[in-house]
Amino acid sequence: MNSSEVEHHIPRGFLFNAVRAGIKASGKPDFACAIAPAGATAAAMFTRNRIVAAPLIVDREHLVKSETDLRALVVNAGNANCATGEPGIEACRVVCGAAALKLDVHASQIFPSSTGIIGVPLPVGKLVNAMPDLVAGAGDTAEHVERFTHAIMTTDTRPKVESITIATATGPVNIMGIAKGAGMIHPNMATMLVYLFTDAAISAVELQALLRPAVEESFNCISIDGDTSTNDTVLLMASGASQARWESTEFPHSQFREGLNKVCSILAHKIVDDGEGVTHVVTLDISGARTREDALRVAKSIAHSPLVKTAWAGMDPNWGRILAATGYSGVPVTAEKITIRIGPHLVFDRGVRAGGFDEQAVHEAMRAREFTVTLDLGEGPVGCRFLTTDLTAEYVHINADYST
Amino acid sequence: MNSSEVEHHIPRGFLFNAVRAGIKASGKPDFACAIAPAGATAAAMFTRNRIVAAPLIVDREHLVKSETDLRALVVNAGNANCATGEPGIEACRVVCGAAALKLDVHASQIFPSSTGIIGVPLPVGKLVNAMPDLVAGAGDTAEHVERFTHAIMTTDTRPKVESITIATATGPVNIMGIAKGAGMIHPNMATMLVYLFTDAAISAVELQALLRPAVEESFNCISIDGDTSTNDTVLLMASGASQARWESTEFPHSQFREGLNKVCSILAHKIVDDGEGVTHVVTLDISGARTREDALRVAKSIAHSPLVKTAWAGMDPNWGRILAATGYSGVPVTAEKITIRIGPHLVFDRGVRAGGFDEQAVHEAMRAREFTVTLDLGEGPVGCRFLTTDLTAEYVHINADYST
Repeated sequence: MNSSEVEHHIPRGFLFNAVRAGIKASGKPDFACAIAPAGATAAAMFTRNRIVAAPLIVDREHLVKSETDLRALVVNAGNANCATGEPGIEACRVVCGAAALKLDVHASQIFPSSTGIIGVPLPVGKLVNAMPDLVAGAGDTAEHVERFTHAIMTTDTRPKVESITIATATGPVNIMGIAKGAGMIHPNMATMLVYLFTDAAISAVELQALLRPAVEESFNCISIDGDTSTNDTVLLMASGASQARWESTEFPHSQFREGLNKVCSILAHKIVDDGEGVTHVVTLDISGARTREDALRVAKSIAHSPLVKTAWAGMDPNWGRILAATGYSGVPVTAEKITIRIGPHLVFDRGVRAGGFDEQAVHEAMRAREFTVTLDLGEGPVGCRFLTTDLTAEYVHINADYST
Repeated sequence: MNSSEVEHHIPRGFLFNAVRAGIKASGKPDFACAIAPAGATAAAMFTRNRIVAAPLIVDREHLVKSETDLRALVVNAGNANCATGEPGIEACRVVCGAAALKLDVHASQIFPSSTGIIGVPLPVGKLVNAMPDLVAGAGDTAEHVERFTHAIMTTDTRPKVESITIATATGPVNIMGIAKGAGMIHPNMATMLVYLFTDAAISAVELQALLRPAVEESFNCISIDGDTSTNDTVLLMASGASQARWESTEFPHSQFREGLNKVCSILAHKIVDDGEGVTHVVTLDISGARTREDALRVAKSIAHSPLVKTAWAGMDPNWGRILAATGYSGVPVTAEKITIRIGPHLVFDRGVRAGGFDEQAVHEAMRAREFTVTLDLGEGPVGCRFLTTDLTAEYVHINADYST
């Protein structure tokens, strides 16, 4: 996405910026903010990991205390502020306090995030020192957005932004999402941070109701290596600067919903596509499950199988491994009801290897960077689409060949 | 283990053999049998995978139909007879019928096993043709046992046998186990086959009661890559040829139990140690769980984390990944109660990085082929020991760099 494209869809009312606080060893910008106008609303979702980083503890507190009346997001890269104990929480509060002071708001109106190294004290002094420049330099241009997108990157090889515009009776409404993911080089965690912005006027309650299904169908349907970070966060903020109000009968509700879902899905795809050592992005199209939970269990079992993932890396039409991973998913299944397709090719047909299946043709289909594995369980009416990757020797090298 | 050692502990009453049926592409022996005397008893456990291979369906039938009065085990390598539909079950029955005919027993007294390629029809003619030589050549020497151990190997780099002798009032009782595992090269599954033999006289009901905890603490506490085969089988047979009877008050019950557990544990270790591309065998010593199930969930979450396993491959003291995998195991945990040791070194101490932990020293401890990760959850009194491996680029190469 080039700058001009970003420029068109930046939700009004928000100011963005990023500066060098000196945490990243590379010396690159590592401290970003997004400032919202008074009256903005917010909703958030967090990692299901039981071990959570300090900023997530503070985020939850602030959402309650400010009644989701957030005024700014501050995010640093290079240090996850995780497994840092009570001092880590205190450090996070100090950063929020410094931001609140500059913005003349309450500390509970600041939403902090951190991503990077785990178990190392947050260099709070560096962040506090950088705060004045961070806030003073904030603006609403594409260049400001780009600063933000680059500063939150850790091992991401490219920034991840997606935005759309929806026409409404009161003019255009914009939705923009900025994400980071993919980063798993020691000792970082695979932290996924997603920040969604819109200039529609939407209540916090409605925002939460919009965010949940959008996340469920996108970020909760991807997996690179099955590891869940301690810092995963998705935040959605609405500035109301467009004057298009959700309560209005003229508001294009379904278009907005679709737009939000689309932004999330595209960002989710970008995160998977930028996974470490990834050479194939695979869509699992599961159908015929009794429940969506069953479909997801099968998808995750396949997506987390090292045997399946290495076969994909080798472009090997190994349906046996897919079938076995389905079998140990815990979902009651019967081989005699299952069909498996790789790309357009039927490879397993209700109990047996598909007749006339041409291994060479399937192998060719798997040479594409992206292909779909279609699995019909034959048990019920429900399905899911799940995005995952292969497992390459490069992944192992990236994650192993580091010596402390 | 050398031949003479094996020779000492071969349970009396059993005859072993293996021949070339011509299934293995290498032309090596691939068809093995173990023949039990009349009156022998048996107990078995099978994979929890919902997709099961044809021989397992027939095994379950035969155990019921023969009332566990098994007289022979026949096992072929090179073809798993899985995902072969109804013809696969029929093929399996034909093999059992041929064995029954030669041994003059009922077909339901034959216990079939298969390991190897999936989705390809079992070459039943080859097995039937080889049956006369297989049965005729059976014997009770170390050489016969060795033939068996080698024939069931697929990608195993070495045969796996373990045996012990227990002194009883009526003379020695022997327990011997033969296993295969480790094999995951396309399109084989990671099939684990374990055959346990004893010359004690033990009822089938008692055998099952002995087998369950022995398997629970050994084969159910190992993981190389988390993939569960469609063919996993553990069979325990007792010939009664030693005259030592379980019912006797003089029978050394606890010694026998310990002996069986030990044989299983050593075989489980051999399977893990021979895992594909393994450079480190890691014991997870989990304690402080509320329930054993919780302890196992945490162990499996760590053992299946690609990020943890690649860190081990790189001998990287990355406790953050271990902590994160603990957090997403689904077991309620609190960082502030958790301690983690790598080898003897405390690396994480109730919420924070352990003070004074020397990364270089931990790195040194991880240079050993085997080391222990000790994790105290601080939640309760229960624990488990779980054996797993690192994840190396070599594993990926073995499992990916195959082109059909």
